[in-house]
Amino acid sequence: MSQQNQRNRTGELSGTEEPVRIIPLGGTGEIGMNCTVYEASGKILIVDCGVNFPKEKAYGIDLIIPSFNYLVENRDKVVGLVLTHGHEDHIGAVPYLLREINPPIYAAPFALELIKRKLREHGLYEHAKLNEVTAGDELSIGPFSVEFIHVNHSIPQSCNLAVRTAAGTIVHASDFKVEWMPRDEEPIDLSRFAALGDQGVLCLLSDSTNVFEPGHGESERTVAKNLADLVKSAKGRVIVTLFASNLYRVQTLLHIAHQNGRRVLVLGRSLHQIMEIGQLLGLLNLPDDLLVIQQEDLEAYRHDQLLVLTTGSQGEPRSALTQIAMDDHPWFSILPGDYVVFSSRVIPGNQVAVDRICDHLYRRGARVFRHPQYGVHASGHACQSDQQLLISLVKPLFFVPVHGEYRHLARHAELAEELGVEEAFILENGDVLSLWEDEARRTGTVTAGRVIVDGKGLDEASGVALRDRKKLARGGIVVAWLVLDASSGEVVFGPRLLTQGVVGADPGQDLIEEAVQEALRAIQALNVASRRETAEVGEALRIAVRKVFHRRIENKPVVVPVVYEL
Amino acid sequence: MSQQNQRNRTGELSGTEEPVRIIPLGGTGEIGMNCTVYEASGKILIVDCGVNFPKEKAYGIDLIIPSFNYLVENRDKVVGLVLTHGHEDHIGAVPYLLREINPPIYAAPFALELIKRKLREHGLYEHAKLNEVTAGDELSIGPFSVEFIHVNHSIPQSCNLAVRTAAGTIVHASDFKVEWMPRDEEPIDLSRFAALGDQGVLCLLSDSTNVFEPGHGESERTVAKNLADLVKSAKGRVIVTLFASNLYRVQTLLHIAHQNGRRVLVLGRSLHQIMEIGQLLGLLNLPDDLLVIQQEDLEAYRHDQLLVLTTGSQGEPRSALTQIAMDDHPWFSILPGDYVVFSSRVIPGNQVAVDRICDHLYRRGARVFRHPQYGVHASGHACQSDQQLLISLVKPLFFVPVHGEYRHLARHAELAEELGVEEAFILENGDVLSLWEDEARRTGTVTAGRVIVDGKGLDEASGVALRDRKKLARGGIVVAWLVLDASSGEVVFGPRLLTQGVVGADPGQDLIEEAVQEALRAIQALNVASRRETAEVGEALRIAVRKVFHRRIENKPVVVPVVYEL
Repeated sequence: MSQQNQRNRTGELSGTEEPVRIIPLGGTGEIGMNCTVYEASGKILIVDCGVNFPKEKAYGIDLIIPSFNYLVENRDKVVGLVLTHGHEDHIGAVPYLLREINPPIYAAPFALELIKRKLREHGLYEHAKLNEVTAGDELSIGPFSVEFIHVNHSIPQSCNLAVRTAAGTIVHASDFKVEWMPRDEEPIDLSRFAALGDQGVLCLLSDSTNVFEPGHGESERTVAKNLADLVKSAKGRVIVTLFASNLYRVQTLLHIAHQNGRRVLVLGRSLHQIMEIGQLLGLLNLPDDLLVIQQEDLEAYRHDQLLVLTTGSQGEPRSALTQIAMDDHPWFSILPGDYVVFSSRVIPGNQVAVDRICDHLYRRGARVFRHPQYGVHASGHACQSDQQLLISLVKPLFFVPVHGEYRHLARHAELAEELGVEEAFILENGDVLSLWEDEARRTGTVTAGRVIVDGKGLDEASGVALRDRKKLARGGIVVAWLVLDASSGEVVFGPRLLTQGVVGADPGQDLIEEAVQEALRAIQALNVASRRETAEVGEALRIAVRKVFHRRIENKPVVVPVVYEL
Repeated sequence: MSQQNQRNRTGELSGTEEPVRIIPLGGTGEIGMNCTVYEASGKILIVDCGVNFPKEKAYGIDLIIPSFNYLVENRDKVVGLVLTHGHEDHIGAVPYLLREINPPIYAAPFALELIKRKLREHGLYEHAKLNEVTAGDELSIGPFSVEFIHVNHSIPQSCNLAVRTAAGTIVHASDFKVEWMPRDEEPIDLSRFAALGDQGVLCLLSDSTNVFEPGHGESERTVAKNLADLVKSAKGRVIVTLFASNLYRVQTLLHIAHQNGRRVLVLGRSLHQIMEIGQLLGLLNLPDDLLVIQQEDLEAYRHDQLLVLTTGSQGEPRSALTQIAMDDHPWFSILPGDYVVFSSRVIPGNQVAVDRICDHLYRRGARVFRHPQYGVHASGHACQSDQQLLISLVKPLFFVPVHGEYRHLARHAELAEELGVEEAFILENGDVLSLWEDEARRTGTVTAGRVIVDGKGLDEASGVALRDRKKLARGGIVVAWLVLDASSGEVVFGPRLLTQGVVGADPGQDLIEEAVQEALRAIQALNVASRRETAEVGEALRIAVRKVFHRRIENKPVVVPVVYEL
């Protein structure tokens, strides 16, 4: 380590006592909601601003975004927001941040186009300060010098960053993978990482997603070959579902269609949007203007002349594939013999939904081809060997694993220490890591948290609504109401009990009557003064009803007491 | 097919026009809740009577059992209940069936012991008619002759059945796998299946679980070797979690502990119970009486002298492993350097919970070893090659894939038809398949369904409570109440709105006030007669509130109106 240490000490920008602070507001201890704060010379640079999706689908939550309290409180310090690529877990929360503060935004064209559309939907486009960057650029943003480095990933124009500060250079390797021979872009700029490593890197933050996958990940070339073989072997229609943002995979499938004399039908709004952006930016090459067909052309082609691309690889309820599988799509139906190819992995939490879609597809006579059995998907994240490669090239003094749940971070930290970094820090959201030119330590925490987005509602109250929904889901609800004569403390009407979602409490069962009697007894047992207080009567009612339900049916529904005082 | 056809025609019991009917009441289109009805000569034989576990964990459902309506309606016809093995998805619903009807029960000793304990818990043991069988037995049960055939599976003493009827022989291959050299039992009795095949089999019902796994499954010997290597390499404690009922795996781990000079600590009620039964029946061989230690002995051994067996491989909330991971166990804690081995697969739907447990284990300094990366688990179900082997040996005229979700059944049916069966039938629960000696066809359906068990409550109402819970979970609830002067139709108090689990409806927000005003307007707009009816006022209130919430926050909470009439 001493050699690196020295290298770092002689770095051009070093020689000051002021630390740079790294604060993840999201993206550590989770895969999603990436948002990292860099703080130096009293200024703040934000890298990425993403959403997370709830793993539990039951609670009607649309999105989870980081709490921006810390940024709002320090709004005057914020000099810019840099976005590494256009995935939702890196850009999805930008509109929510822009409701609060309006920093200049820097991103490559593909991500920038996606953000523009998002901001237009939220009515925020007009005032946004958008700046286009290209891999290789080096920009001064406040006291930070930010270099954009080309990497491979599952969306075009992904960048990692070298952030130069007075304390030293930090390499921010958010999502990346290593493709030796990518089909439609350049290989990852490994020599740039090597050069940075030789100049001395204070700290590396690196993508931990696939730390439990040994070796070098599957290449897009292998996926392309397997997809081509499948399409060649099909005698009928082939329907491929994939992540819409994976434009290179879309390109691959267009090539395959072309080579096999198939026309392409595209289903799903987000696929249409991505292909439109791809064409706009010259990233999508349509081998033949007539390749992509519309609904009205469908009848003009034989089954073996069709390839369908569709959204819905995660079994999303309103996606095109789900509609098709349920035979609920306005004009497209599965036919016996159709091949349906899932050119995607299943995100944990979506397994049951995807399995169910496959069942429906089989029920309608389709044959389903899934990853990993058929090799029709490759991850966009570096596997273990490539994570080791990056650490070895960058040779950082310190290491921070990011983009992972705790186990991924812990394993990645181990890997880095095996490779000789001085110290690896497992941060959790809100932790502050301060780095000097040859030292790093945790120096506190700032407010961090999760804000739930449901429709137009934001739950700032630390998930109170979500906790209530969980209780309602587990046991249902009993509304218990009565009318109280406040002067005498007598119950003059009720209690009446209304139940929803309570198993074993069908109306007419003596359970309800028992709860009513128990509640009356409990209210009777209050002293006279308490009996005249609606709050105390309500609480006695609530507890009595809850007790009877628990004793009789081993259930604990939420009990809402309503007391009307005459 | 003609040759097989002929064989069947010359089968000893054939020569009648009366069909045998096969009716799955559970276990087709799902993995779980196995229950199959055989009907011949006006009598009913039930094979297996299992539960399913909800894939969605949010709704507080404990179990799902088949609806027994058809059996209750035909109670006089039922001649017996045969249980193939002791897994919950084959025996778990026996107590619920025995509340309704009380047929003689036939099972091998291991399953029988598990059932006895279950029946005692439900207070049903005294009157149960339990009969012990052994693989190789052939019993007459009413008009059925039932032979028990030894197979390998992940629980001791698993049997498949040959059910002889006047129409022909049906082989019921519920769960099985093929182990060439099992460690603690005989290999599957393949020659018996071959002999049955040579005599002529009318129909084979077979386990579809692993139809998408190519080849011959992993053997327990490989698992044993990998587990032994892990334990050998560990310098500290090794904690292994597994399915409690997998007694042979427990035996393997006891051997490994013994060979490595480690004592065994057992955590979790179900593991204790299974080991007790194993010893009672002479199935568990403790190499040394002092091998298994208790809590109070824990301090007496060094870390490298300990192997811990624990329940909780699926991240079950109240299991020992979950308590340990959360540092919530009364007397056992993870120490840095502990190895935790998941000698189990993750059942779909449990991925997120298991991942979370692993995160907690890493957070406390443990190193986690999971299936399939470390080869520490083998499925108890036949993979594709062994499914093909069984079909090839049994040579059935007809085929019914069971024990699978729809896609598994569809693929297994395809396999069977590729191997030359006359016809494969994909049945869904309640479908009736009638078989004559050389013919089979669907002849209708009977009542089948799912009954939800929640605490002591049974939801017979086709899941109404579950549907309500889903609505409550998605949007929360608003209780809207008011007091009505019925003579004038005037609202004299309220409406008041109470919300639970509604995102974006914090008290004091003008959303509530807007909903109140909208409701008053809606009630005002009713004609005078309607305004005096609490039901009509309540409905106007409900609709108005719902509309405002939807418009303002794009949410649709459940709205419960309460109208008190003065």
